[in-house]
Amino acid sequence: MADPQHNARLETFCDGVFAIALTLLIIDIKIPAPDRISTTRELWLAIGHLGPSIFAFVLSFAIILITWVNHHAAFKLVNRSSSSFIYANGFLMLTVVIMPFPTALVGEYLLTDHAAPAVVIYNSVTAVQSVAWILVSGVALRSRLTKDERSASVMRDNRRNGYVAFVVYSMLALIALWFPLAIAIVTTILWAYWLTFSLRES
Amino acid sequence: MADPQHNARLETFCDGVFAIALTLLIIDIKIPAPDRISTTRELWLAIGHLGPSIFAFVLSFAIILITWVNHHAAFKLVNRSSSSFIYANGFLMLTVVIMPFPTALVGEYLLTDHAAPAVVIYNSVTAVQSVAWILVSGVALRSRLTKDERSASVMRDNRRNGYVAFVVYSMLALIALWFPLAIAIVTTILWAYWLTFSLRES
Amino acid sequence: MADPQHNARLETFCDGVFAIALTLLIIDIKIPAPDRISTTRELWLAIGHLGPSIFAFVLSFAIILITWVNHHAAFKLVNRSSSSFIYANGFLMLTVVIMPFPTALVGEYLLTDHAAPAVVIYNSVTAVQSVAWILVSGVALRSRLTKDERSASVMRDNRRNGYVAFVVYSMLALIALWFPLAIAIVTTILWAYWLTFSLRES
Amino acid sequence: MADPQHNARLETFCDGVFAIALTLLIIDIKIPAPDRISTTRELWLAIGHLGPSIFAFVLSFAIILITWVNHHAAFKLVNRSSSSFIYANGFLMLTVVIMPFPTALVGEYLLTDHAAPAVVIYNSVTAVQSVAWILVSGVALRSRLTKDERSASVMRDNRRNGYVAFVVYSMLALIALWFPLAIAIVTTILWAYWLTFSLRES
Repeated sequence: MADPQHNARLETFCDGVFAIALTLLIIDIKIPAPDRISTTRELWLAIGHLGPSIFAFVLSFAIILITWVNHHAAFKLVNRSSSSFIYANGFLMLTVVIMPFPTALVGEYLLTDHAAPAVVIYNSVTAVQSVAWILVSGVALRSRLTKDERSASVMRDNRRNGYVAFVVYSMLALIALWFPLAIAIVTTILWAYWLTFSLRES
Repeated sequence: MADPQHNARLETFCDGVFAIALTLLIIDIKIPAPDRISTTRELWLAIGHLGPSIFAFVLSFAIILITWVNHHAAFKLVNRSSSSFIYANGFLMLTVVIMPFPTALVGEYLLTDHAAPAVVIYNSVTAVQSVAWILVSGVALRSRLTKDERSASVMRDNRRNGYVAFVVYSMLALIALWFPLAIAIVTTILWAYWLTFSLRES
Repeated sequence: MADPQHNARLETFCDGVFAIALTLLIIDIKIPAPDRISTTRELWLAIGHLGPSIFAFVLSFAIILITWVNHHAAFKLVNRSSSSFIYANGFLMLTVVIMPFPTALVGEYLLTDHAAPAVVIYNSVTAVQSVAWILVSGVALRSRLTKDERSASVMRDNRRNGYVAFVVYSMLALIALWFPLAIAIVTTILWAYWLTFSLRES
Repeated sequence: MADPQHNARLETFCDGVFAIALTLLIIDIKIPAPDRISTTRELWLAIGHLGPSIFAFVLSFAIILITWVNHHAAFKLVNRSSSSFIYANGFLMLTVVIMPFPTALVGEYLLTDHAAPAVVIYNSVTAVQSVAWILVSGVALRSRLTKDERSASVMRDNRRNGYVAFVVYSMLALIALWFPLAIAIVTTILWAYWLTFSLRES
């Protein structure tokens, strides 16, 4: 059960899931219903009210893109597969596929008085995503799927980053119970930092 | 009409269908409508009411993932193709693509007094999926598409498992007419067992 | 502008479109709204009313699957590409991507007194699909993209079948103005025949 | 971080996004609600009212298809990758993925008295898409990812076309504030010209 073909098909499958999850994000941005619009000004205002939805769309798009880039990099470290590795990846896919749900929640409720559940759930999903990363890298290390010692060392760094991310997003989720808007801003800055960091690396 | 290229494109096509079917499951989990929510507590409660939908989402995600893993393993046994094989796979894809429908039914009606139709249909779809597996493995055997005798032997086991699964899910669908909730629990345990079994195999 | 890579990416792209179009068909089968259901019997009845939608879903699934198989076979005849060929394929994709719309129309209106527009449009879309086939095979022949004389000969058969299909579906669309239900039955029988014919070929 | 594999996976990922974005366009063409239809004539009229939606669907389909063809051609010029290149492509994908939103806006509001916001936003999105093209080709040139001098020269043309496109679409977006319908016609003619130009090139 360990050959390069194996991973090729798993990789393609995951790429498909990433690409679809990214693209599906848009269907939660609904255009303003025409029966409520009677002037051009009203249409501009109604589109303006989609601001939080568009913000949430762009943030989730960036998160899934960064996750894809990391997944891409991680798969270059392994050259074998195992059932546990496939299912750990399946779990990671679950946390990617679910993204449109917290994204829609944040888009709808961010600027209301009851934003807390939206931001708490959004950060909880990314915290669970960190758990999936810990599992994927942990299984790769335990089952010795990595190419060589250098790859194993990078994979260990991935796992450690997974633990750090889990602690950070769990804390953000917790604090968002009281300060949802502030946490939404901190989360955005964090991901913007990740993106810049990723860009500088090459 | 028998070359490796043939199967490569069929495999990619099926992978695409699996990946999209998985990802589309999320669009049936609708966020609570904002006009019914006026406090944070109400939003938490409304999200809590999505419990059965999220349960159904995770169950169907696991079923499609396991089916993909099995499809993956089955395709490593064959190295040729035929029109019948392509259409048998097409029928299997039909039973995968339809999954969002019974999933949404279970999510909506599981905890109501009229859960029976939802659970009956859910198990009927997986029973029809077993028929598709019987056809795929049966065609592969009859048209001698398998690589060698060992592959043919594993394929025969697949077909037998298909028959067993068909009997089990049909019975579950039947009993769900009277005890839908109990059958929902049994179905979940069965798939959790399948997943654990799959994991231990590697 | 003529190398095998070229076609590989076009093929993958088309496969993706086929796979997604197939899978998207399901989202037009909406589950019965819970506020109209108060007994198990009512839920069974409401699901029963989805009959035409499920019929339309299965028919369109079969049509897209058969189209994919034909596309698959046609691409084995060509080993080069051209801009015209890419855009002719793009036009074919347009006629595949649009399928969920006539499918939903037929599902909603087939058993009502005003089924004519639904069946007329359904058959018109397949008629336009035949035009796309004529273009794809015509461009392949005119730009000499086919592998050899034997491939060119099969491609000419494809083009001729395209003309026949165009005439047949156009006539069905026309007659459906007066006899929509009868034409829906004839269309289904035609595609069932195509499927059986396709199966026997291998 | 520079090997052919790298680009292969990026290419597949982008192809997936293009294919899904294309196909998702259809779900914004909703069939007429059955409770408002009581005669065949009314159904024909209601379908006729979908004209602007179908127009917007075909236009956006053509734009995404042309963008895919250009992306396809651009990737044949590069044989290496970098983080900046991946994220520049990710940004291009963002502008493709967002297309269903302006498409639905145009479909809904084009023939009303308040078409301006729809047409302004539609052309703004394509203007931002030009910025993405400038970034993709700019990064490819700056990081020397192109295969050879000839490829670099074509890429420089791409970048220049990106600047021209940005100016053109920005101006169209601006003028659409006052003359939305006229600009919608000009935009359509422009893309039809692009398509014809693309076709003649081969």
